[in-house]
Amino acid sequence: MSKSNLITPRTLKGFRDFLPELMIPREHLMETARRVYRSYGFSPIDTPALEHLEILKGKGSEETDKQLYEFEDKKGRPVGMRFDLTVPLARFVAQHASELGMPFKRYHIATVWRGENTQRGRYREFMQCDFDTIGTKSVAADIETALVIHDLMHAIGITKFKIHINNRQVLNGLLERLDLLEQSTAILRALDKLGKVDADKVAAEMVAVAGATEAQARDVLSLAALQGEPSSVLAGLAPLVAGSQRGEAGVERLHELLTGIKAAGVSDARIHLDVAIARGLDYYTGVIFETFLEDLPGIGSVCSGGRYDNLAELYTKAELPGIGASLGLDRLLAALEELNLVEKVRTPAPVLIAYFDSARFEDYLRLAARVRSTGVGVEVYPEAIKLGQQLKYADRRGFRLALIAGDREFASNTCQIKDLASGASSEASLASNADELVERILAILAENAD
Amino acid sequence: MSKSNLITPRTLKGFRDFLPELMIPREHLMETARRVYRSYGFSPIDTPALEHLEILKGKGSEETDKQLYEFEDKKGRPVGMRFDLTVPLARFVAQHASELGMPFKRYHIATVWRGENTQRGRYREFMQCDFDTIGTKSVAADIETALVIHDLMHAIGITKFKIHINNRQVLNGLLERLDLLEQSTAILRALDKLGKVDADKVAAEMVAVAGATEAQARDVLSLAALQGEPSSVLAGLAPLVAGSQRGEAGVERLHELLTGIKAAGVSDARIHLDVAIARGLDYYTGVIFETFLEDLPGIGSVCSGGRYDNLAELYTKAELPGIGASLGLDRLLAALEELNLVEKVRTPAPVLIAYFDSARFEDYLRLAARVRSTGVGVEVYPEAIKLGQQLKYADRRGFRLALIAGDREFASNTCQIKDLASGASSEASLASNADELVERILAILAENAD
Repeated sequence: MSKSNLITPRTLKGFRDFLPELMIPREHLMETARRVYRSYGFSPIDTPALEHLEILKGKGSEETDKQLYEFEDKKGRPVGMRFDLTVPLARFVAQHASELGMPFKRYHIATVWRGENTQRGRYREFMQCDFDTIGTKSVAADIETALVIHDLMHAIGITKFKIHINNRQVLNGLLERLDLLEQSTAILRALDKLGKVDADKVAAEMVAVAGATEAQARDVLSLAALQGEPSSVLAGLAPLVAGSQRGEAGVERLHELLTGIKAAGVSDARIHLDVAIARGLDYYTGVIFETFLEDLPGIGSVCSGGRYDNLAELYTKAELPGIGASLGLDRLLAALEELNLVEKVRTPAPVLIAYFDSARFEDYLRLAARVRSTGVGVEVYPEAIKLGQQLKYADRRGFRLALIAGDREFASNTCQIKDLASGASSEASLASNADELVERILAILAENAD
Repeated sequence: MSKSNLITPRTLKGFRDFLPELMIPREHLMETARRVYRSYGFSPIDTPALEHLEILKGKGSEETDKQLYEFEDKKGRPVGMRFDLTVPLARFVAQHASELGMPFKRYHIATVWRGENTQRGRYREFMQCDFDTIGTKSVAADIETALVIHDLMHAIGITKFKIHINNRQVLNGLLERLDLLEQSTAILRALDKLGKVDADKVAAEMVAVAGATEAQARDVLSLAALQGEPSSVLAGLAPLVAGSQRGEAGVERLHELLTGIKAAGVSDARIHLDVAIARGLDYYTGVIFETFLEDLPGIGSVCSGGRYDNLAELYTKAELPGIGASLGLDRLLAALEELNLVEKVRTPAPVLIAYFDSARFEDYLRLAARVRSTGVGVEVYPEAIKLGQQLKYADRRGFRLALIAGDREFASNTCQIKDLASGASSEASLASNADELVERILAILAENAD
């Protein structure tokens, strides 16, 4: 073979293509998220993929700075690709606050980029679906955030999940009572390891690194050990924070949240109080959410968030408290794949019209337009090749049924409907005053959907 | 004022934020495009925003290279941000051809980046909605492409548009007959200026730059002058290309295309044959489409495309002919804004529940869940502030109606429905066996939709 001048077609390491069989369910997830967010009055926004580097680096977190895709544009401006949707939101509300008005509820479904280590199976480009309520400290917004997460999981078709809930003030209250508030970062860092290392080691770290006494460390761990069914956890929390205004307020706020969630019809079985979860040591100041799939807890939280006191302090003097959460769309998609909840279909149209008789092409077009006008997607095979090949194509793509008509059928104003799942064929009238064809198509589609 | 350490919140030059009042219609356009593409059996795909630089620079076009956002990633790899969706498609089908199978129909709705001169009011980040049929030379795919463009415009709500159609082989046929085929690039470059400069100047350029005779230039211009109603243009074309196999095939192919489009029910008024359009001098090899809004022709084509012989020749030896078109979503959105076809609404939920009585918050939650379960979006105001302020908020956001209930209403199991357009209020029962509330809400929404 002679040397080829071809460029090898390939994606960058850590990046990937989405083929239809994965992109169809991925789009379906996005649509579901949009529908649920909208049903609660969240409005869509979009921000640029590229921002001034100083906007993205404003927070100065070493970890995100290390992962940032940054460069100089043609004019020498330092720019970066967004690594999350929260920093752009903060910049956005600071910039447009007067136009937006408060409270402001937005969702944002968009791609973010992080030059992460790919050895852990992580991708460097992934989609996030965030929703946030800015400009209110009301517990009503906390309750609503939990309800949105709940409805989102349901709408996606996940029935076995648990929303883990905490309020940072509860732990802070205990630390205040123990006079450990100044060491809270070190305490929380140790506590975060619970589950990965055993409790004795966590206690030892609290003593060694955070300067707690052995007894204080045990108190923190006994608080963190309280988890599970909401009302019993709440009862257990009260004495541990008694006397700390912060802690008592945190417990009261958790109580209001749980009461509201329950009143809105959410089952207790979906809620799990977990006083140990902290999520981002400095960021969240109130309630915290994480969402785990009961059949696949190892994949981590698929929807996380919480309340923050001041979203945009780097960009504006206006105080903007808020609450929100983020659905990790690509992580959830990976989970659904692993749980076999993703249907292998490569076409969004269920009906294929076989292009059988080249003299009848216009009839096929008219037939397609007619079925399409009822809201059912239809593809006309683009070439008049052998029927067998067209049916193989239909099978491979995952069409649900094929419409087959030649001279004989058109002459008698009928059409063969082939159910591609069962292989059964039957004849339907094409008479325009009868809706037999469409009814039969809808019946087969409804059957296959079961 | 003391010196502030705040970072000025701002976007990069040529980039912009989408606030809800623009993002709501923008999402609606994307959804419409997805729905139409799917209804013809096009499947979604996605590709990375970043590609190896050699993939993007493969074509070596000076113009796109100049506009490319390119940089080295952390590992020193030369990378670039995609500037269109066609190069990624070519790479994608070359890489996955055996998995995909042919014919392959895909759509791709995604952002692209070009460091263009912003003085022309162009943005450097914009969204494209492409659809393509790969792996067939059949005229059936040409017809379908026109039908998709037609249905797309209709579904978007544009009634006054014209799809301009040409076939590159017609012009090539004439050039062949005139023995000008080798100068075709220079001829087409001159011809492209028609409309901007007058015909005499175009003819002069053909003579001076392309080396045509005065008579030849006139012949090319007389062909290009043929445009308008399909059947008369076709009749006029035939003698001009007679004797050129290429030209005659082009005219025959145009004839088949127009016959198919008409058979599928498209009005002649929507189709405009224009032999002068060439679009991209080297790329398209067959039919070419452009789509103009009759009320705003100056904005240019909002949906353009055509047939190409070999999509992925840079990346594979497999010959992959195809046809496709691209909806310029952000250009179309700008046009709809200019035509006042964009409704100014900042919330996708039509119903606001006023949070009126703080002791009744759980009742508001239940009421919201009930209305939401019928498919109508509902926002509960997050704080128990004065009703007047909540109604101002509702007005500003564009809610259609407010539900107002206090102790008196809940005691009598009723609720006030306030139509925010007319200001009229009425009372509806909340009795769970009666659907009065939902019926009344739907009636008001239907009214306002007129």
